[in-house]
Amino acid sequence: MADTTPEALARLRELVSDDLERTNRIIIEQLDSHVEMIPTLGQHLLNSGGKRLRPILTLIAAKLFGYQGNDHALLAAVVEFIHTATLLHDDVVDKSNTRRGRATANSVWGNKAPVLVGDFLFSRSFQILVEHGDLRVLRIMADCCAIISEGEVMQLVASNDLATNEARYLDVVKHKTASLFASASQLGAVAAGRSDEEAAKLSEFGLKLGIAYQVVDDALDYASQSDELGKNVGDDFQEGKMTLPVIHAYAHAEGEEKEFWQKCLEEDEQPEGSFERAIALIRERGSLEYAMGKARQFAAEAKAALEGLPDTPEKQALANLADFSVDRSY
Amino acid sequence: MADTTPEALARLRELVSDDLERTNRIIIEQLDSHVEMIPTLGQHLLNSGGKRLRPILTLIAAKLFGYQGNDHALLAAVVEFIHTATLLHDDVVDKSNTRRGRATANSVWGNKAPVLVGDFLFSRSFQILVEHGDLRVLRIMADCCAIISEGEVMQLVASNDLATNEARYLDVVKHKTASLFASASQLGAVAAGRSDEEAAKLSEFGLKLGIAYQVVDDALDYASQSDELGKNVGDDFQEGKMTLPVIHAYAHAEGEEKEFWQKCLEEDEQPEGSFERAIALIRERGSLEYAMGKARQFAAEAKAALEGLPDTPEKQALANLADFSVDRSY
Repeated sequence: MADTTPEALARLRELVSDDLERTNRIIIEQLDSHVEMIPTLGQHLLNSGGKRLRPILTLIAAKLFGYQGNDHALLAAVVEFIHTATLLHDDVVDKSNTRRGRATANSVWGNKAPVLVGDFLFSRSFQILVEHGDLRVLRIMADCCAIISEGEVMQLVASNDLATNEARYLDVVKHKTASLFASASQLGAVAAGRSDEEAAKLSEFGLKLGIAYQVVDDALDYASQSDELGKNVGDDFQEGKMTLPVIHAYAHAEGEEKEFWQKCLEEDEQPEGSFERAIALIRERGSLEYAMGKARQFAAEAKAALEGLPDTPEKQALANLADFSVDRSY
Repeated sequence: MADTTPEALARLRELVSDDLERTNRIIIEQLDSHVEMIPTLGQHLLNSGGKRLRPILTLIAAKLFGYQGNDHALLAAVVEFIHTATLLHDDVVDKSNTRRGRATANSVWGNKAPVLVGDFLFSRSFQILVEHGDLRVLRIMADCCAIISEGEVMQLVASNDLATNEARYLDVVKHKTASLFASASQLGAVAAGRSDEEAAKLSEFGLKLGIAYQVVDDALDYASQSDELGKNVGDDFQEGKMTLPVIHAYAHAEGEEKEFWQKCLEEDEQPEGSFERAIALIRERGSLEYAMGKARQFAAEAKAALEGLPDTPEKQALANLADFSVDRSY
């Protein structure tokens, strides 16, 4: 993996550092509630050192068109709110104990508060967007939120089902992850007052970037160390999530190997050493390489979507980000 | 309790029966998703024989002003979606097993799907409202959803805390229950194109009606039979919810009685017979009568809010509903 990868992110941050600071201020302001637990719990996750990748997409996309106003920072804050709400609900659904190397909200406060604070963040997001008053923006975010929840349900239904194939997996990824990357990017163009056509290019870029990003994320769950990834490696396996490495390895498995996957993923029988064996089988079948190859394809499609947009440092930074998304090790 | 009470509801339904049918059709249509589990789980609750009280408020309020269009049915469907979403999340939060005499979604599908389908219903609601395109309506619903989630968190924080007093309890009730009654009523006036002033009267009516309704609901949890109420009597007690009967009984308790409440509600120690003793103490202290008196006060305030509105059968039906809300035994 390239040594230079974190630079792609650093470069993005540099290009929008003032805007990102503004976004962070809006996040803190808008998290305010007379119900103390809401900002407390919200900040736990919002200040936990997330990469702010999605709001950065909004900011960069707006700047790519030379936008000089402040609306993009507001929309970026909303994007991060929606992302945070989905994480809070995700962690409850997945019973996760750590995220970004910290205890999850549900493991600190139990399941109840994160569900409700997630609901608050969704609602506050729409309050902000109504105040902003642009129905085009409201439509993008309402549609996006519906698609995300559909994706989450799709993933739940596909869990523990070895009949899940690559197409179905990618459909889940598009819904639950890539749709927010798409909307985040698109909103930057909309904030800059650009045409639907130009906004669609950014949306396409975000969608493909998001797919690449999630495919890599899922691969890393069978490849990296817990402290690098900031979440528990092996969680996906334990939960019976049908991600690309598993789908590929199972499709190429034979005889007893097939039974192993069935026991582990469908019947939820995972005796000591199962995860290690899963990793070994995935390596043997070249399933990680396969997944990374897929991710590279989507990253290339993301870059292709940028064609015809103004040649600016921001465009270059987005292209670099697409490369980074598949070269990262965390 | 008056024999005639269910007539108040029947009369309301009669006044808007065509509109309510239209609302029910919209609910089915809008619940549609290519993700099969979403309509399946959504219908489980939406077709479970709920009273449709909140959407009826929207329909009646619109008709009170002679409204002839169809927008009110759409808004009524949204109101029911939001209500259903909060129920789905509530039941997960409360770990409830029955609602309206049926198994809850979480007890059938586990915790995961109801959280996510609740998110879908929130999102779909905003999609419908964006399509409808009235920012005034969008503001009312976004604000309402934020207030409801604040109320749910407030209730969570107040749980198991005997320092919770009546004012704090009523504040929770206003947020988590009455705000949706208020918005539902207000939306009817808005659909009918009425002024903010007139809409505010309906909102005030709904708010006071909602408080009365919830205060009675909480009292019934210490008074009625499970099969009448359609939920498990004693749930509130078991969960340590600080509702008015308990607050009143504790405030008037002395010596060992105080200790009993502390053990049961703060320390979660509830040996066999605890609920029966709680009911006995609540009766002894006249706490149910106190709560019902409070509810009657709010119902009277609800009726007072209707003053100055056109004298129509709908207005009379709303006034009757306020009476019904405190005279019902379920």
